[in-house]
Amino acid sequence: MTQRTVYVNGDYVAEQDAKVSVFDRGFLLADGVYEVSSVLDGKLIDFSGHMQRLKRSAGALELALPWDDEALLTIHRELIRRNALEEGMVYLQLTRGSAGDREFHYPGADTPPTLVLFTQAKALIAGRSGNDGIRIATQPDWRWARRDIKTVQLLYPAMAKMAAKAAGADDAWLVENGVVTEGASNNAWILTQDGVLVTRELSHAILPGITRAVVLELAEALSLRVEVRAFSVEEAQNARECFVTSASSFVTPVVAIDDIAVADGRPGQVTRQLRDAYIEESRRRAI
Amino acid sequence: MTQRTVYVNGDYVAEQDAKVSVFDRGFLLADGVYEVSSVLDGKLIDFSGHMQRLKRSAGALELALPWDDEALLTIHRELIRRNALEEGMVYLQLTRGSAGDREFHYPGADTPPTLVLFTQAKALIAGRSGNDGIRIATQPDWRWARRDIKTVQLLYPAMAKMAAKAAGADDAWLVENGVVTEGASNNAWILTQDGVLVTRELSHAILPGITRAVVLELAEALSLRVEVRAFSVEEAQNARECFVTSASSFVTPVVAIDDIAVADGRPGQVTRQLRDAYIEESRRRAI
Repeated sequence: MTQRTVYVNGDYVAEQDAKVSVFDRGFLLADGVYEVSSVLDGKLIDFSGHMQRLKRSAGALELALPWDDEALLTIHRELIRRNALEEGMVYLQLTRGSAGDREFHYPGADTPPTLVLFTQAKALIAGRSGNDGIRIATQPDWRWARRDIKTVQLLYPAMAKMAAKAAGADDAWLVENGVVTEGASNNAWILTQDGVLVTRELSHAILPGITRAVVLELAEALSLRVEVRAFSVEEAQNARECFVTSASSFVTPVVAIDDIAVADGRPGQVTRQLRDAYIEESRRRAI
Repeated sequence: MTQRTVYVNGDYVAEQDAKVSVFDRGFLLADGVYEVSSVLDGKLIDFSGHMQRLKRSAGALELALPWDDEALLTIHRELIRRNALEEGMVYLQLTRGSAGDREFHYPGADTPPTLVLFTQAKALIAGRSGNDGIRIATQPDWRWARRDIKTVQLLYPAMAKMAAKAAGADDAWLVENGVVTEGASNNAWILTQDGVLVTRELSHAILPGITRAVVLELAEALSLRVEVRAFSVEEAQNARECFVTSASSFVTPVVAIDDIAVADGRPGQVTRQLRDAYIEESRRRAI
């Protein structure tokens, strides 16, 4: 396989040389945030939305972000060019860097943050999951209280996905106080038997999904009735359709939850419609 | 300042060359655990306790730990020797390594974990905090649900310590459901007006402190009455004495909580007694 070119703190390097200090606060303290922007036809999807959320995450943690959207766009595009990426993702991680030793307190403002970006080639449109749907296993939501900040504290989502895999499922939904918060790495949606599209309201409990926001716009354009509220696992199992949204999975049908088939166990019609609309709109807006 | 020698995956390197791949799961997903062992007179304190807990943390996460205590002791000692460490800490971090790309699911069992160790020189015995005491500010406990696993998901403890600093305090105690769980990086204790030593029972809510366990033994040896249960902030503010325990702070007096002085605002007598006993016992047991 060809070596990828990776961006690390101003340098474009071969992936085997892409390294950070062991004293980096991203490595020692999970003191960092990230974004994943998808790429179709070599162009970036929802880029400004992702960069806006990056600024929000960094702001919430008092993390310096000394690059503006244009500088970040240049890096994204340069990585896409160097890696001849047609379809896939660009991953960006920003950490608080390192003052040279391990210490809980944040280092001085003169400590440069660490910025890492790399590409991942992936068949986003033709992939099996997005077209055939995925099976969900529910897991308790054991994450910290500020899930609205997109931090690299991703151990529990990884654990939940492994537990889902062990249960024969493709992904996990996280459940707290009797209702679904969100997927382990995506937002959760249902279409009720009455034809109402439901997804949870924004709060500290869930990530403000960029794809979620676009799909809400598309639902409005398609004149779908929408309710922004939490739902239980039982309501989802009894729904007409279920799906998840994320930057890299777009709109992906959910065909079973804890081994209970959703409707006839095949991707729903509205889900397909939203997936197609999202892909079309994304291609149109891509930069 | 002389460059430290750092251990990274089998190599002893200068600290400026101590690096890990940006694809390391410790950096991308906080998929790692750690231990801090203190050093007095060039010898390790509570080493077997820390290694036992390391195995427990790794086990809870299905993380491979292909080094036995003897191999890990050799690395600790070699770092102490190379860095001429008389007093301070040896930090150890184990992560799930990297299969070469970012992916939530754990990589195959053939993926080597990452092991990093480094030393930190620090005046543990003569330090100001341990002798004069520290001021505490309380913060809501917003961490994940498995605080008994010593993971590198330390962003919130760092945030809590920064909030405490902003409030004019030295450290934070974390509060949930009206009671103190533990300090941001230590276990919390009080001595009630009735002379009962209280610290919270072990559960998923707190870290099973190695120093905590030794101090419980010492309390028994000193014939102190002990209750293992949670306590409220108010109970702590009205206590006769308060202190915290951790590997690097030993037994450290708490002299104020949210600007309310504990007793006369000076380190308590039993706290000093336990600190002295802990240091004496540690020196005796050090290897």
